[in-house]
Amino acid sequence: MIKTIGILGGGQLGRMLSMAAARLGIRVHIYEPQSQPPAGDVATRVFTAGYDDVNALRAFAKSVDIVTFEFENIPAAALDIVEAITPVLPRRNALEVSQDRITEKHFLQAQSAAVAPFVQVDTLADLQAALGVVGTPAILKTRRFGYDGKGQVRITALDQAEEAFASLAGAPAVLEQMIPFEREISIIAARNANGEVACFDPGENVHKEGILHTTTVPASISHALQTDAVLLAARILNALDYVGIMGVELFVTSDGLMVNEIAPRVHNSGHWTQDACLIDQFEQHIRAIAGWPLGDGQRHSDAEMTNLIGDDVNQLEEWHNSAIHLYGKVEVKSGRKMGHVNNISPISA
Amino acid sequence: MIKTIGILGGGQLGRMLSMAAARLGIRVHIYEPQSQPPAGDVATRVFTAGYDDVNALRAFAKSVDIVTFEFENIPAAALDIVEAITPVLPRRNALEVSQDRITEKHFLQAQSAAVAPFVQVDTLADLQAALGVVGTPAILKTRRFGYDGKGQVRITALDQAEEAFASLAGAPAVLEQMIPFEREISIIAARNANGEVACFDPGENVHKEGILHTTTVPASISHALQTDAVLLAARILNALDYVGIMGVELFVTSDGLMVNEIAPRVHNSGHWTQDACLIDQFEQHIRAIAGWPLGDGQRHSDAEMTNLIGDDVNQLEEWHNSAIHLYGKVEVKSGRKMGHVNNISPISA
Repeated sequence: MIKTIGILGGGQLGRMLSMAAARLGIRVHIYEPQSQPPAGDVATRVFTAGYDDVNALRAFAKSVDIVTFEFENIPAAALDIVEAITPVLPRRNALEVSQDRITEKHFLQAQSAAVAPFVQVDTLADLQAALGVVGTPAILKTRRFGYDGKGQVRITALDQAEEAFASLAGAPAVLEQMIPFEREISIIAARNANGEVACFDPGENVHKEGILHTTTVPASISHALQTDAVLLAARILNALDYVGIMGVELFVTSDGLMVNEIAPRVHNSGHWTQDACLIDQFEQHIRAIAGWPLGDGQRHSDAEMTNLIGDDVNQLEEWHNSAIHLYGKVEVKSGRKMGHVNNISPISA
Repeated sequence: MIKTIGILGGGQLGRMLSMAAARLGIRVHIYEPQSQPPAGDVATRVFTAGYDDVNALRAFAKSVDIVTFEFENIPAAALDIVEAITPVLPRRNALEVSQDRITEKHFLQAQSAAVAPFVQVDTLADLQAALGVVGTPAILKTRRFGYDGKGQVRITALDQAEEAFASLAGAPAVLEQMIPFEREISIIAARNANGEVACFDPGENVHKEGILHTTTVPASISHALQTDAVLLAARILNALDYVGIMGVELFVTSDGLMVNEIAPRVHNSGHWTQDACLIDQFEQHIRAIAGWPLGDGQRHSDAEMTNLIGDDVNQLEEWHNSAIHLYGKVEVKSGRKMGHVNNISPISA
């Protein structure tokens, strides 16, 4: 029986995973290089150490029954050390796929999932050739370490190539065609070690300056597309023999669904589940990795989640009748996710 | 602005209050004499010290912006020390009223609230005289420190008086008439410093062996009685200039509502709010004492809460599609509250 879970990463996702574990009577130890991490306030123990600190990683791994993570860019060497002592879920094949945009796209294509046309870019010459294949508008993205619109630049004309390439400072990259999508949705799916899959209803996402702004549930999509999203998510999870929650971001196009990216962890676009489902994405993840049966993913209410970015967190007046979730971050910074709010309403359909 | 809340008591109520505070980005320090308290797993800091440890109480009070509590039997001397440094909410007048059953009944009568006929009992002679006034069946209760059916004994015949009196081992007591109630309900009410009151819908309680077994919402009572319950709760809170959540246990009798007892804290019969209201009793309490606007108390779903007592916590199979709340208690004991489960369903009315 899993009594203590270790979480690599102490941000807001780790914080909300910790609270979900606590609801199930499970203790949490957090591993995080930065001091005063948001998750530390709701964890039994915090290891403050770097991902290159072999002794701290070992002590952390020994102190828990299982390890999970709240972000995908965990150094492989750190995982090696932890995995030698304690099982890590989701398994690292999911990390390997999602850490590199090109590996991810190849994996998705192998699952018959549509992805935007893309070309690998290592040199300026690569980029210029790629623009000939992909056309404009296009997006140049670093293969690794991108999040919240960071590490990517839009290219609308061929003469922007040089500047765009320079902006990535030599990082290996990929050029993707910009897809004229009707809407962006995401589906949050869970799978346990028995191969059972449960999905939350797809949410519709609106971004602002590269950062998720709102997720609305239900998404304005047909029942057929909703089914497609579920089947696609299940195919991806099954292919990875995945255990835990995964976020799958999808474009709705005139040709059907296209995968934007996958995230092998709880996902910002799944925060609405906290107040519109009896068992939310955080608890579902804990249930999956701790070997508990999954919740069925049913929602009891329609929902809209709005992120509180930077100074939004100091303007809570309009949200007082909403469910407010603040992350306890010590410093407010422009562009930093400080919290989110959920509003719910009776199910419309 | 309240950034850190201190909680006297580290049991399951403190644990759930801590998590509610964390959702609002507020840190929690726990004060608890016993080691490894349930609330310690989700608090930023734990003070492990007795209520007679002046230095620890002072350090605790200095470390937080405001203090609240999860149980009513806090020694007055400890409160004196804490209050000299940091405000305590709810204020101690509510504790003074609720710590002594006779003080409580006099207070309730002064608010025109009906209570069961009662007589103060300090000696066996008192008890024998009281049985003449109150009749049988009756319940002899210690004036202080009772909970979950502890410190009370039922008297169905006059010749049981001596044994009943002996069982309380000389504690000051009160004899109450046993009320032939139709049902027992409770109303969980909140009031903030501006005098705003918000109530959750009354729940119907079923006890097993003196311990709350289930709370079902809505209670099977008329709209008129529901209104009576709200008005009665508001009268009690206003009379105390109360800030925080209070649980008010009521008997539904052929003559209307009668108050069984009040608890100046979050209450077991309000646990259903965690999964059937956007803002639950724990968050409502934190909002009230931290000076935030209150949620309106609306429920989005009907609900049934079932307590997991003792070994129930090892038989969770039937509850897997429910919201499970476990308290992380280190040891399972017979009669100990180990957790609870909430089931919800669409609103029936």
